Amino acid sequence: MKDRVTILTGGVGGAKLALGLCHAIPAAQVSAIVNTGDDFVHLGLAISPDLDTLLYSLSGQAHPVQGWGRSFETWHFLEAARSLGAEDWFALGDADLALHVLRTQQLRAGLPLSQITAGFARHWQIAARILPMSDDPVATHVLTTDAELDFQQYFVKQRCAPPVVAIRFQGSAAARPAPGVLAALHEERLRAILIAPSNPYLSIDPILAVPAIRQALLQRTVPVVAVSPLVGGAAVKGPTAKIMRELGLTVSSATIARHYGDLIDALVVDARDPPEPLEVAHTRTDTLMKTLQDRTRVAHAALELADRTAIRVRR
Amino acid sequence: MKDRVTILTGGVGGAKLALGLCHAIPAAQVSAIVNTGDDFVHLGLAISPDLDTLLYSLSGQAHPVQGWGRSFETWHFLEAARSLGAEDWFALGDADLALHVLRTQQLRAGLPLSQITAGFARHWQIAARILPMSDDPVATHVLTTDAELDFQQYFVKQRCAPPVVAIRFQGSAAARPAPGVLAALHEERLRAILIAPSNPYLSIDPILAVPAIRQALLQRTVPVVAVSPLVGGAAVKGPTAKIMRELGLTVSSATIARHYGDLIDALVVDARDPPEPLEVAHTRTDTLMKTLQDRTRVAHAALELADRTAIRVRR
Repeated sequence: MKDRVTILTGGVGGAKLALGLCHAIPAAQVSAIVNTGDDFVHLGLAISPDLDTLLYSLSGQAHPVQGWGRSFETWHFLEAARSLGAEDWFALGDADLALHVLRTQQLRAGLPLSQITAGFARHWQIAARILPMSDDPVATHVLTTDAELDFQQYFVKQRCAPPVVAIRFQGSAAARPAPGVLAALHEERLRAILIAPSNPYLSIDPILAVPAIRQALLQRTVPVVAVSPLVGGAAVKGPTAKIMRELGLTVSSATIARHYGDLIDALVVDARDPPEPLEVAHTRTDTLMKTLQDRTRVAHAALELADRTAIRVRR
Repeated sequence: MKDRVTILTGGVGGAKLALGLCHAIPAAQVSAIVNTGDDFVHLGLAISPDLDTLLYSLSGQAHPVQGWGRSFETWHFLEAARSLGAEDWFALGDADLALHVLRTQQLRAGLPLSQITAGFARHWQIAARILPMSDDPVATHVLTTDAELDFQQYFVKQRCAPPVVAIRFQGSAAARPAPGVLAALHEERLRAILIAPSNPYLSIDPILAVPAIRQALLQRTVPVVAVSPLVGGAAVKGPTAKIMRELGLTVSSATIARHYGDLIDALVVDARDPPEPLEVAHTRTDTLMKTLQDRTRVAHAALELADRTAIRVRR
């Protein structure tokens, strides 16, 4: 029985599809391979923004509107830290701190990130597997016209303002997939691999930059279906379209398809996108995911596209 | 001009007198040498309970009733940490976390505790000097009839229930006074040294166990005046009287005076205490410090007693 689905995902937009997937099929059959290129240390705390967004989303604790962080969050820590001279450009909520403090403690005690994340998921009774792409450090650096910036410096502190010249994933060449990742890409009961509509350049590429993950995708035994992050020809949220223009690319799903190239077999495209020829199998549907129903519907569309698509490349 | 006063202090009760002292004389003329024997690492965070109580008290942020922590505190971190399986016996408030997170970060960066504490005090515009007794680790251990316990295990987790057999200050023999401590005990403009009505056995003894601090007190050039922690022959709060009984001591100010021995020249005793002969100079006054006025009055009483007392021991 082919009942398992694995999704490669970043934070915000990706977590929405991951949640939809956990409603489209039983959550226990879902594995999420999550970008850790955004991970960084801030005020001495080890922060994994995309893992946290998945943990909050799949445990029903995510903020319903802002796309990151928890619902019902308070900010007394940040206010006190500011009064003590600490940098306050990265929003650390009071309850959110629990993940960072405990993760930092457990990393220092020698536990790998994958095991720590699994522990958090277990405590919050998350049935899906949330897997960091790697337990080894990979750091996304954004080369801008001015300077090479750490991801959070670019994304949060400078609000994606500086024009992007190139993006590097420091440490990726030596990074090994975290335990469970290769199994989630190869397991016998796998039905499909999805690529979430996260930013391809900032959030999915770091995952694909882990050599053994890229290799596993190239040697896939089930279709890989990406959901385009463009809705009506633009990014829903975040800098995807802006970065595409800065990199000299046409902002279109055809560009997204070409970007993933041999790694995908099909693409889910938003119904509002301008019609254009695509070199991969595709389906057009409303990909804007406002409600849980939207998210579940898009997950179903991606799975159905996978079911009727053949693998393009087999090596 | 002899206008400076140095106070040796633990947390709760001691911080009340330290605050009174900062109103009895200009705060900029006050130095507090603070017990760090209670310091411990919890959830990976470096916590200094007595330093924190001083920081909160002298910056007007202390909880008005409970004696530790901040006013207007919230507990969302602790609730989230509990949901992730963390131990929750030590109360870590949301805003309170700022001190612990930033202290931990700065200690890891190699800054000494004294410098970190001075930075916090500067940000909160505290005019008094708050000095940890030592930048070296000293850990108060409580030997009970059952086991040898870390201070916080005894004090918070087991709520001082196990009978005390002995108290040890691990690391004290090798501990050097923090920068500023010896100067605060020897400076030319010093008027008096006060010992706050903290628990003598748990909160003041760790300070006196730092060899160079004890030596500096024995070689004092100004009177040392202790304020008895007993009010009406009992402890106001905390386990002072209980510990005295468990150690086979009479619960009386005479016992407190004998305990400090050659290190003090005079003792402030509560007016309600049963009359008893004392071997040191003393004054009887209401030492219960409920209001800021009470605290200021007790500080004045201690200073006036110092002014009319000669140094007993000079070596």
